[in-house]
Order: sequence, then C-alpha cells, then structure tokens
Amino acid sequence: MKRRIGVLCSGGDAPGMNACVRAVVRAGASEGWEVLGIRRGYAGLLDGDAEVLNNRAVGGILRHGGTILMTARSKEFETPEGQAKAVSRLKELGVEGLVVLGGDGSARGALALKQRGVPVVVVPVTIDNDLAATEMCIGVDTALNTIIEAVDKIKDTAAALRRAFVVEVMGRRCGYLALMAAIASGAEMVILPEIPLEPGRVLSELEEARKRDKPHFIVIVAEGAKPTAEEVCREINNQAAGEDEFQARVTVLGHVQRGGTPSAFDRLLASQMGAEAVKLLASGQHGRMVVLRRGQVTHCPLEDALRAEPPRWAELYSLAEVLAQ
Amino acid sequence: MKRRIGVLCSGGDAPGMNACVRAVVRAGASEGWEVLGIRRGYAGLLDGDAEVLNNRAVGGILRHGGTILMTARSKEFETPEGQAKAVSRLKELGVEGLVVLGGDGSARGALALKQRGVPVVVVPVTIDNDLAATEMCIGVDTALNTIIEAVDKIKDTAAALRRAFVVEVMGRRCGYLALMAAIASGAEMVILPEIPLEPGRVLSELEEARKRDKPHFIVIVAEGAKPTAEEVCREINNQAAGEDEFQARVTVLGHVQRGGTPSAFDRLLASQMGAEAVKLLASGQHGRMVVLRRGQVTHCPLEDALRAEPPRWAELYSLAEVLAQ
Amino acid sequence: MKRRIGVLCSGGDAPGMNACVRAVVRAGASEGWEVLGIRRGYAGLLDGDAEVLNNRAVGGILRHGGTILMTARSKEFETPEGQAKAVSRLKELGVEGLVVLGGDGSARGALALKQRGVPVVVVPVTIDNDLAATEMCIGVDTALNTIIEAVDKIKDTAAALRRAFVVEVMGRRCGYLALMAAIASGAEMVILPEIPLEPGRVLSELEEARKRDKPHFIVIVAEGAKPTAEEVCREINNQAAGEDEFQARVTVLGHVQRGGTPSAFDRLLASQMGAEAVKLLASGQHGRMVVLRRGQVTHCPLEDALRAEPPRWAELYSLAEVLAQ
Amino acid sequence: MKRRIGVLCSGGDAPGMNACVRAVVRAGASEGWEVLGIRRGYAGLLDGDAEVLNNRAVGGILRHGGTILMTARSKEFETPEGQAKAVSRLKELGVEGLVVLGGDGSARGALALKQRGVPVVVVPVTIDNDLAATEMCIGVDTALNTIIEAVDKIKDTAAALRRAFVVEVMGRRCGYLALMAAIASGAEMVILPEIPLEPGRVLSELEEARKRDKPHFIVIVAEGAKPTAEEVCREINNQAAGEDEFQARVTVLGHVQRGGTPSAFDRLLASQMGAEAVKLLASGQHGRMVVLRRGQVTHCPLEDALRAEPPRWAELYSLAEVLAQ
Repeated sequence: MKRRIGVLCSGGDAPGMNACVRAVVRAGASEGWEVLGIRRGYAGLLDGDAEVLNNRAVGGILRHGGTILMTARSKEFETPEGQAKAVSRLKELGVEGLVVLGGDGSARGALALKQRGVPVVVVPVTIDNDLAATEMCIGVDTALNTIIEAVDKIKDTAAALRRAFVVEVMGRRCGYLALMAAIASGAEMVILPEIPLEPGRVLSELEEARKRDKPHFIVIVAEGAKPTAEEVCREINNQAAGEDEFQARVTVLGHVQRGGTPSAFDRLLASQMGAEAVKLLASGQHGRMVVLRRGQVTHCPLEDALRAEPPRWAELYSLAEVLAQ
Repeated sequence: MKRRIGVLCSGGDAPGMNACVRAVVRAGASEGWEVLGIRRGYAGLLDGDAEVLNNRAVGGILRHGGTILMTARSKEFETPEGQAKAVSRLKELGVEGLVVLGGDGSARGALALKQRGVPVVVVPVTIDNDLAATEMCIGVDTALNTIIEAVDKIKDTAAALRRAFVVEVMGRRCGYLALMAAIASGAEMVILPEIPLEPGRVLSELEEARKRDKPHFIVIVAEGAKPTAEEVCREINNQAAGEDEFQARVTVLGHVQRGGTPSAFDRLLASQMGAEAVKLLASGQHGRMVVLRRGQVTHCPLEDALRAEPPRWAELYSLAEVLAQ
Repeated sequence: MKRRIGVLCSGGDAPGMNACVRAVVRAGASEGWEVLGIRRGYAGLLDGDAEVLNNRAVGGILRHGGTILMTARSKEFETPEGQAKAVSRLKELGVEGLVVLGGDGSARGALALKQRGVPVVVVPVTIDNDLAATEMCIGVDTALNTIIEAVDKIKDTAAALRRAFVVEVMGRRCGYLALMAAIASGAEMVILPEIPLEPGRVLSELEEARKRDKPHFIVIVAEGAKPTAEEVCREINNQAAGEDEFQARVTVLGHVQRGGTPSAFDRLLASQMGAEAVKLLASGQHGRMVVLRRGQVTHCPLEDALRAEPPRWAELYSLAEVLAQ
Repeated sequence: MKRRIGVLCSGGDAPGMNACVRAVVRAGASEGWEVLGIRRGYAGLLDGDAEVLNNRAVGGILRHGGTILMTARSKEFETPEGQAKAVSRLKELGVEGLVVLGGDGSARGALALKQRGVPVVVVPVTIDNDLAATEMCIGVDTALNTIIEAVDKIKDTAAALRRAFVVEVMGRRCGYLALMAAIASGAEMVILPEIPLEPGRVLSELEEARKRDKPHFIVIVAEGAKPTAEEVCREINNQAAGEDEFQARVTVLGHVQRGGTPSAFDRLLASQMGAEAVKLLASGQHGRMVVLRRGQVTHCPLEDALRAEPPRWAELYSLAEVLAQ
C-alpha cells in the first residue's frame, strides 16, 4: 500500500497557497505517495473532511489566489481534547506525515501535534511576514505588489490635487509590509509598530515635504502602529484647516492585499518550499519549519522558528528616509 | 497671430484626463491654434496660472493617471465676482475659447462662464458617471476595471474562508459604478442609491446564497446608498453571531478607484471627446457638452446636459439578480 | 419535463466567452430551462459530447479566459452530411434551441443549422471584431487592453534607446484592433488592411517624427495589412543602416491577445448578450445574431449579419494621424 | 565646492533602472554630493552629454520603465582611444566617481575605466540575469512577472483548443529566465542553453503529457537554446500532422519583457543597490560591483564579478520536471 501524507491550510489565506499545495501533491507523487487534502484547516481535520488529491486535481491552481482546500480557524483544536482528537483522526485517515501551510497560529497548532508525536512540517504562508525565522513567507511579495499598485494609483490623485494620503497596510504587529511598501512606492513617510514616533513628527515631515516642493505627501501606516492611520489623518487635517493644500484622506487597503494571482516570486517560493516539505518528510526530518534563510530554502526546528527574534529594521528605515527626500 | 484656446481640469481627477488634454492640444495644433494649459482649474484661472502647451509638452502623458494640469476646487469662482474676474483673466490671457474637463460642478462653472459670453465646451470626466447626458464619462471604464480587479481578489479570500464581504464603491449619488461592478464581478448582491431596499432583504439574500451553496457572499454598496456598507456588515454579523460561516468584513475601495493608467476604452473616449471639443470651438458651436450618445461621440447644449434625467437602471438591476443565482 | 437548450463555443476562443456561457446558463435557468453545455464546438456536437450545466457549474468562471466548454474546428460539420448529423444529434440530445458563441465561421455554421430548421441564436465572440453587424464583439476590449499594455512596455525601451518598433496585432482582414490600438497607445503610425499605403510613406513618417523630436517611432501593423510588419521593419533598417537612431525591431504579439481575464466591458457585454440570446429563444425570435448597435444590445437576422458592409475607418484614421503629431 | 559623482545607464534598459538612478541621486545628495546624470551611456559620456540631477529631477521616476538617462551602445568606447577620451571627459566634467548601471558589456566597460584609474562602481541591471556574481540583477523579477502573465494568457487559449504552445523568452546565453518562468507558470517543458536535450525528447514529453491527460502542452525555450522555439514547433507539427490535438504555435515574447513598471522586488533591489553604490564611493571602495549574495546586498571586485562561474541549474531543472507532472 502507498504511504499517505496530508496537507492542510490554516489561518488566513495568502497568494501562493495553492501553488504550494500543488507542489506538495506533485512532489509527494514523485516519492510514490498518496497525498490527502484536508479541507478547512484544523477544523476540517477534526471533522475528517478530506479527499485524496492526484496530480490532475491540482492542475491549473498554480496561478489562483485563495486555496482550493479552504481554510478556517478552530476553537476546538486549541484545547488538549481537540488536539488529541486531531491525532486520532490522522490515524484513522492513515496519514503518516502532515504538511501545514499557514502563519504563526498555524505553526503553534503544528507544534502541539508534534508534541503528540505527529510527523509534521510547516510551510510559512502569510502576507504579514511576521515569522522571524524566515526572510520571506509565501504571499508577501504578491501583497507588496498589490500595495504598490494601489499607492501608484493614489499618487496620481494626490499629485493632481496636492493632497496628503494616509494608507493603512496589513502586517499585524509586524512592520515589514509597511516599510517595504514605503520604499517601493516612494512614500514620503512610514509608521511602523517597531519604531516609535516622536510627537509632532508627522507635521514636521509634512512641512519639510512642502518646502522641498513635493507634489504629494503619502504616509504608509502599518495596521499595528501608533499613531493609527486615522489619527495621522486627523492630525494633518486639524493643522491644515482652512488651507486647501495637503488636506489628508485615509485609504485602508484591507483584504485586497490577501488575494490575487501570485507573483512569480511567490510561485517560485511556494513551489520550492512545498517540495522541500515533502523532502523533509521523506528523510524523516519532521517537526520543522521550511524557511528562507540567506536567500536559500532550508529548514529549522519548529520550536526555534516560533522563538525567533523579530528584526528591528533600523537600516531599511533609514534608507526609506533618505530615498524620500 | 495664432488663435489661442485654453484647457483646464476641474473637480476630482480621473483616468483619461491627461489623454484628453493631449487630444485637445494636438487637435488644436492641427487647427493651427495655440493651446494654453491652465493649471489648478478655476482657482488657477483666477490666478492666471497658465502656460502654452505644444505637441511635445503632452508627449507620453496619454497613459498616465491624474492630470499634468492639476485640478482644484475654488470657492472664489462660485461667486459672481469670481466669475467676472475669470472672464477678465481669459481676456488678458488672450483665450478665445475654453475647454473644461470635469464633472457636474465643473459643468455648472462652465455654464456660468457661458452666460457671461465665454465660448466654452465641456468634456465629461468623472468616475462617478453621474452626468446623465452622456452614456459614459471619461474615467468610468478604468474605475470599473480597478473595482473588479479588487473584487476578484477579495473573492479569493472570501471563498477560502466562506466569508461575506461588503465592498463600498464610489459614485456619489449615482449607482452606475456599483451596478456595473456587481454584474462584472459576479457579486451576490448590490445596493444602489436609486433603488430602495426592503428591510430584511440582506439577510434573506444571504440565506438564499447559502442554500444555493455559494462559496461566498459579496455585496457591492454604492457610497450614496442606504443602508451603508458599514450598516450592511453590522446586520450580517449580528445575525451570524456565534457562527463561523459568512461572517462579514467591509472594504472601502476609496481613492484607488480614481487613479491608474487609463484603460483602452478611456483612452479612446478621451481622444475622441477632446478632438470633438476642438471641432466644436472651430465651428463656433460652443456652450455645449461633448457626450456619448447611442455609442457615438456627439454634443448637446450645456443647459440640457445639466437637466438630464438620471436613468433608473431597472433592467440592469434585474439582470444582476438573474446572473447572481 | 423541462425545456432544454444547448450552448457551444466555436472557432477561436476569446476573453468573455466563459462570462457569456455563464449568462446563458443562468438566464436559461431563470426561464425554468435546462442548459446543455456542448463541448468542443460543432465537432463535439457531432460526437454528442455534452453535459447539463446548472448554476453552480458556471460559478467562478466569469473571470476566466478561455472556455470551460472548449472549442474546436470541424471539417465534418462543413459538409451537408455533417450538418444533417448535427441536426439529428441535437434531436437525440433533446435540444430545442441552440446558442452559438463565436465569430464569422461559427455564424456561417449556425446559418446552416437555421436553414435545416434548428432554432439558433449567435453571440459574436472574437477579438478580431470582424463582424460588421455589431459595433463590438465580446473579447475585443480585453484584447485592446492587452495590446496597449504591451505597447506601453515597448515604448519604455523604445524611448530609452531611441528605437523604432513595429508591432503586429491580430484582426485577420479587419483593421479595427490595429487602428484602435494605435490611437489608444499613441503610436506614431498605423497600417491597416482597409487603407492602402503609398510607397515611401513609412520612411517619410519616420523622418517627420525625427524632425518633431519624437522619442520613439511605434508602428502598429494589422496582421492582414500590406506591407507586413516584417517588411516595414526591413524598410526602416535598410534606410537606417549605419545609423544608431531609430533602428527597428518587430514584435508579434500573437496569442497573448486572445487570453486573460476579461475586462469589465467584456464581462458586461458578455453578460448582457448571453441573457439576450436566451430572451430571443424564449420569445421564439431565432435565426438571429445578438449585436451591439448604437451602444445598445439588440439583434438582427443571421443572414443580414453575415452580409453587413465592413466600415472604412476613414474618420478614426485621420484622428490617429492628428493625435500622433 | 561639492564633490561630484556621475551616473550612467549602458546596454539594454530594464525595469528598475530609473528606480536605481533615483537611489543614486538621493543617496548621493544625502552625502552632500552633486550627482551628474550622463545621458546615452558611454556614447553620451564621450559627447559630454550630461546634466546635474537634484532630488526633484528624479521625483516620480521610481515607477517608470526605461530610463530617463537613456542608454546606448558605443563602438568608439570599445577602443583604447575612446576609453582615454572618456577618462578626460570625466575630468572635464569634474566627476570624481562613476556609477554604471547595466549588464555584462557595461561592466567590462567599467573595468576598462577602473584600469585607467577611474573610481567606478557597477550596479547589475539586465533582465537576462547572466551576471553570475549576483543572485539577481535589477529587472529580472519584473521580466519574470511579465512572462508568467503572458503564459497564463496563452494557457487559456491552449486549454480551450488543446494546443501546444512554444514560448521563446529572453536571456541570451543564460537559462535563468526560461527555467524560472517554466516553474512559475507551470509549463510542461523547458529548454535551456545550459542543459542539452536528447533527440526525441520533445515528442516523448508531449506523448507523456497526453497520457497524463494534460489540457495543454507549454514549452518555454530560452532564446539561446538548441533546439530553438521555431524548431521545437516544427518538430511537434510534423508529428501531429493530420491530427487536431496538440498542434503547436510559437510565441516570441520579445521586447515586452524589457519594459513595464518595475515590480516591488525590483524597486527594492534597485533602491538598495543604488544606495550601496554611493556608500562604496563614499568609503573609497571602488572598482567593485554591487551584488546580491545569500539574499543580502553586498559587493565584490569587478574582476571577480566578470569571472564568476555560471550556475548549472540542475536542481531547479529537476524541480521543474517534478512539478510539471
């Protein structure tokens, strides 16, 4: 009988998830295995909601956003009872190894399974890029491209009207998306959760931008930052009262950042990481997270991955300031 | 001495504005005229903020969003004194005919100038498509494409998580963008300013969608509609409390709808309308708005354009319902 | 028993075909009918290759290029025997009305079926826009957008290197795509099958462009035109020999023009035309082609549609020349 | 007096070149320097065609393809006399350090200047990714995204008609673009200059794809590979004669791969590499190439960069095969 592994998506979806599912299925098939697609994450696992995926079943999904396996959050799985039930389900389903696609919370769930003896490998998929163990998570590059396309559009209007725009981007407590989006879109200012902002800084930067004769004033604000996008906008408008120039508007990019056809980078990363996950299961190296380190796809123990120190971005933050002049 | 005409952009910007400025300049040049670009709309006209645009000055702008002339709103121009001053300025600048690019408010300004004897032609440019005299305004098609790209992305996440998404689109008091976006993106429901919604309809539609086994529930809400996007979202979440499926999120697309490189349709419409405006000035038919009627670029008196009855969309609304099944 | 209609795609595919299939299925369902999807065009019809499509079966296809029904060409169907067999097959399959999506050749096939008593309605789908009976075919707007995106990119390189680029676009014997692409992309010159070019014109235009200090020289050539793209390129390079500036390169856009997610315009047109086709069958008005006339979706007898005089484009050709200055 | 450095673009253009020029100018300004933009590469340098670029002069160019400095090839510069003249020109222009943006040939030119005592730093910009010293050149990521968008579109048609498509991509003698494009687009086969193909392999792969019930057969061929795209197409069509399925078509993507707004990745890489080049000049570390190594922006001596061994791609080639099943 064929060896059987499982694959599931957990937490939020991100572009490249399908590309990664496809890679797990086809790399699994090339090992001679059967790959079981478990639907709706840990919730679906508890329900035994699964079907075997052959190579044809994942044909054409490489370029689609979202995930054919669907994803969900599960309260039950957070309990010891739920986790024990999940282990039983995996046995009933004949799953000898599990690949989990997702972010921080999904990885913690996988760690719980590891501690109960399940051979598990995690692939980091989240646009927030908040798993410090890996330089890039699958989905981040596409989200960045979506953000800069939006900011490029907003700049058209900003320059036509000489306006300020405050753009809130995703990232939870991590400023990566905001910082990279600021550099890549040429924003005048960026506000991150990791780097506190002196009071009055927004208005002094605005004043500087005016003096330098900038045609617009774009501020990228990470969703977890203080002040928030809303507060930054209010501060500008209170000061600009009575004047026409550099009145501010807020744009919250929201869930458009999570969808869309994955970029080339994300398709490549997802393909390589999915194949790497299978290779780890094949060689008995489980309980690990696949990561991008020094530009190479490699892996590390799940426990280490979840303890990794988030970077401080000081150097890139300075670069953003220099290039915004 | 060469005859001289002026061109200005007023109100909000929209994709295709630059393409239209280019068409006015080059069609003007082919008449042997000099074209004066007036910056910052009526405000800039009052300031005499203008420069001659030759054919090279508008090279390469066809594909850029925003407007090289910039746009602005002017309180002063709304007064009789302001309008009289504008007429004087035009004389000082030697402008014998004026092309105004913009929406409803811009057209009213142009009418005021007409009534003071200025030979003026209006080209309808606004993503709101709220000028009933024309089937399409410049910018609408690009905005629609921006909206459906965003909704396509949101659908990826919605389907992956079995969520409801409420997407607010622009249009002021006009439901055109929302209705067309709903049909073109395959939304499950659309809420327009022009068509009142019976109470309870959102939840009954959601229930229907569930029964039909729809993977998501997308509601497009025009910014001028009641209930608002925020209210629709709250209504769904109040009812869905405790359940995981079809929890709702709001996305306000905002100013990204106003920017971006213009679509082929908008570049063509802008090119044809800009050239038509020049032809009208050349043949002495001023005081008119260039319009798209029965699929053809033509024109009508400004007064009629501003009195046109908005359509009721009943037939397309029914089509949206049929296709959402 | 439910009334049953059939739908098939024939000839080349085009963006919006799926959107139209979806509209036929859902509009059919709202009439209480069953809709049979016939695969691989007339070839599949002869093989009886078909399955019932319910509303869920067409879920999510609105935004996909290509066609879920596939398309094909059939030599057998061009013979009287083949056509007689097709009529028998339709009877066996219980099909009481047929919607055919395609271009010129597909419409001729449908006419043959009409003459054998089959209630048939044609929806014009082809990027070539060579059916003169309709102002626009489904797919044309998307193809145009694909072309102008490509030309925008080519212009970047052309301007950086001061090069000439000769871009061949599709359209068979019809110059619509080429002409509209030239206006919408701001090409310096366009060559159409319908408008003969005096000898020496390419080089004189190039010389003019140089004198006007144009940063590039872009020529759009329709695939059916004389001289061909290859010949235009050779002519330029023979003359430019030894010089660095305005050396020419050819780009043949090819099949990328036929694919991609349909634009908003094409999704709307496909949705309306598909629904109109069903309405015609429901009211017994068959043997007709759905067309866009004076900006409205309407219909005309198939025979008339196939005899319509192609337009001469003289006015738009002049506009292209004026705007290229 | 301010210290003055120069920046020029040489060879072919690539997306991100402008972003890099902007980074050089603004990072230079933050060092207190004046940055001279030299137009048309080494050819323009010989002519002394240059102007000072301040921070405003590079405003808004971050997102534009091509290069505001233009680029060119120069025969004269390839001679010792030309190089000596270039050194004199740099002295006349007061340039104390030079940043060269370009590929292989541009770097060789820079090396010649280095050998004549000019403090020079090269930033690798070329979509071919054929500089083995760096993991990525600026422009490659955008080109890859352009290619996969095109292949996604071609797949629509290929699947609708069950066709084979042979797609030629750029890369000169380097297979990077082709290989990555094949993985990222899910092509059935890829042909590289670096990896010889056994005779008969194309047809056996096609046969395999048919048996696996693949809806299409996409072959990506690098421009420097044998067999060429044309030959692959002919081979398939000779064998498929008389059959309808899997007839082949060629698409040569051509210069569209070189243009377009740069991706987020390329804007970030260009920003970081431009700033690094300035830092190297500031710290007296010249005669070097800025490179991406192990995922980090760093640098190496120009001589080493030009001697680096090209990678063999064996592992990624195997991955492409596994994922194409």
